[in-house]
Amino acid sequence: MKNDLPQTLKGFRDFLPETMAVRNYVKNLFVEVFDNFGFEPLETPTLEYASTLMGKYGKEADKLVYNFQDQGERQIGLRYDLTVPTAKVLAIYGNQIPMPFKRYQIQSVWRADKPQKGRYREILQCDIDTFGTSSPIADAEIVAVISTVLQKLNFKKYSIRINSRNVLKNILEKSDIKKDQISALQSLDKFQKIGEEGVRKELVSKDYTQAQIDSLFKYIKIAQPDENLQAVFNAIDMLGVPKNVYVFDPTMVRGLDYYTGTIFETYVEEPKIGSITGGGRYDNLIEVLGGPSTPAVGTTLGLDRIVDCIIELNLLPELPKTKVKVMVANFGQDTTDQSLELTSLLRQNDISTIFYPDADKIGKQFKYASSKNIPFVALIGSDEAAKDEVTLKNMTTGDQITIKQDKIVGQLQKQ
Amino acid sequence: MKNDLPQTLKGFRDFLPETMAVRNYVKNLFVEVFDNFGFEPLETPTLEYASTLMGKYGKEADKLVYNFQDQGERQIGLRYDLTVPTAKVLAIYGNQIPMPFKRYQIQSVWRADKPQKGRYREILQCDIDTFGTSSPIADAEIVAVISTVLQKLNFKKYSIRINSRNVLKNILEKSDIKKDQISALQSLDKFQKIGEEGVRKELVSKDYTQAQIDSLFKYIKIAQPDENLQAVFNAIDMLGVPKNVYVFDPTMVRGLDYYTGTIFETYVEEPKIGSITGGGRYDNLIEVLGGPSTPAVGTTLGLDRIVDCIIELNLLPELPKTKVKVMVANFGQDTTDQSLELTSLLRQNDISTIFYPDADKIGKQFKYASSKNIPFVALIGSDEAAKDEVTLKNMTTGDQITIKQDKIVGQLQKQ
Repeated sequence: MKNDLPQTLKGFRDFLPETMAVRNYVKNLFVEVFDNFGFEPLETPTLEYASTLMGKYGKEADKLVYNFQDQGERQIGLRYDLTVPTAKVLAIYGNQIPMPFKRYQIQSVWRADKPQKGRYREILQCDIDTFGTSSPIADAEIVAVISTVLQKLNFKKYSIRINSRNVLKNILEKSDIKKDQISALQSLDKFQKIGEEGVRKELVSKDYTQAQIDSLFKYIKIAQPDENLQAVFNAIDMLGVPKNVYVFDPTMVRGLDYYTGTIFETYVEEPKIGSITGGGRYDNLIEVLGGPSTPAVGTTLGLDRIVDCIIELNLLPELPKTKVKVMVANFGQDTTDQSLELTSLLRQNDISTIFYPDADKIGKQFKYASSKNIPFVALIGSDEAAKDEVTLKNMTTGDQITIKQDKIVGQLQKQ
Repeated sequence: MKNDLPQTLKGFRDFLPETMAVRNYVKNLFVEVFDNFGFEPLETPTLEYASTLMGKYGKEADKLVYNFQDQGERQIGLRYDLTVPTAKVLAIYGNQIPMPFKRYQIQSVWRADKPQKGRYREILQCDIDTFGTSSPIADAEIVAVISTVLQKLNFKKYSIRINSRNVLKNILEKSDIKKDQISALQSLDKFQKIGEEGVRKELVSKDYTQAQIDSLFKYIKIAQPDENLQAVFNAIDMLGVPKNVYVFDPTMVRGLDYYTGTIFETYVEEPKIGSITGGGRYDNLIEVLGGPSTPAVGTTLGLDRIVDCIIELNLLPELPKTKVKVMVANFGQDTTDQSLELTSLLRQNDISTIFYPDADKIGKQFKYASSKNIPFVALIGSDEAAKDEVTLKNMTTGDQITIKQDKIVGQLQKQ
């Protein structure tokens, strides 16, 4: 038997109830905030035609798409992100969806990446996006959602860094770097990781002149938000986002691929986990991906990373260890009927209850209730049964009281 | 462009917000009942080693497992049901999970089946199971969950049919069918579909004698629950399940594969959609699947079929068409700040609000609010802005009032 012990694939995880409780807490909080901001749920299939997925993420990423031939000899693949499937939805159903369309999508994505700490092959991704408007206010709303979510999750030290592709374009235009701009930006993209010195070194190694490099940093240092980005910042402010959680960061590049305007990412000081959100405006992508021409702005919230963070930073509120409030003990056949009726009564009053199914020794039953952190045990032994009573034991204090069975709901609601 | 229009694979579905609302209503109601009964959430990976999945469901089913070789040349497959992955979890983590273990699992499964009405290739499956007890009360609890869920979903005409493998064994032992018992049961399994006459015809075609067939039906007609099944029925009763929703049905066979005791399925009279739940006791399966020896009882609730049913039977309560209560209109730059502050104020008071991001003509904005079924539109034009006022229009009645901005929360909470 031992040799046949089944295994979970590397980079994949089984979530037992205790972990599920944390994940559900985060997920439900996300949904609550998205609802509050008027984002609506969307879900797309796990499997898509490979032609829908491939060639959309760049060559390196294409290698990470799980793709295969199905029984009908179709080339298909597993969802790699949530943007491409949404572009597909907009291409198919765009005309029946009123614009602007604010959608959230919380679904797994799969990447055949090398597993390592904090990097999994099955990732619970969460995207919010607003489609169909170019308004800077839509950009600001995304930042407001990020700030609200992180605040509600008790994050203290985080920074939403905001920049714009246009600001970067202006910096380059003013600087002496007239060609190989993309290569220069790729180096600048590492600013957060390797600092100004690191970026300078890399630019030197790429044969930029000292004058060019100096001029780049000169214009970065005096860079200001352009008119559009100023409107974004103003709206962020008006939407009540605290000034100390976001910052204009002209060194932030966020890839070079598809962003067309505002870009934003969120970093936490601890743990050193990289960004926990990333996004921006991408007004051309939906059309490139096969959808109708649709301006868009949004962000990914890395649910898995955020869960890892709040566990590591101990940001969890006192989550109840179990939703079960009462375990009804089992004293065997003579009192089973009354015990089951009591179980049913409690449940009907929205008190989560389990009935211990076997007439095991009472010590074993108590041990089980303890191991499950169930706060109360209700006991109907033959004495109690004869008088329609129940003994209710508080597992935390050890106190117990004996009351009429029809008083138990009121008694528990007081606790 | 048109030729490149991406498509969704046959048998797979995109769920737009309106459909998601129905699915989430059903899913949340499921979870609420499972919590109430003390079942805890479990999730397992989408992908597993093919060796974990194959050979577990029978030859025909094996063909329906989506399986392929990954980038690391591992043979892997997509989750086909929720029982095999749970058996894996029990095999790996069994010693750290207190028994009895009541778990629910709501995740997709994939079957490369021929798509047809009501049959999809990606199915949202929902299983509840109790592991680690042989008590008939655990069996009864499963029936009580099914009844509670269907009652809360407003199902009126349904029948939970209950039988036991032991009852069937006793019937066969008493009847004159001494050999080919399995073949006889396979015919009996069609009773619900083709009736007694149909089953008799099929048995004749299989060369059972008239005397054998008569004796089979004779003992079916006088069959009674055995002692264990009687205990299940008693507990079902004590748990408050109405007598008119469940029935002892000695013709019900429910496959021949892995059930060892009580079996149950639920049929609705309309629509003709087959069973909407199916399950039973399977005390050997977890060990067969590679887990530790663990008695188990549970059921699948076909979430997709149940959603199809409640839409077809019109069982939905008045679900709000949107969670958004207010749209704040956009009168352009002069009043944007006040409008955004109002938006933020509403959200902070848990009133779901969208801000219309563009300064479009007000008629277009109203049209958008109507198309989204948003009940209120808040307007701050230059007149209102000058006096810190807001006009609130009730989109259902057409009534509108103008009030101070700081009174809007109280006003909306009254509505």
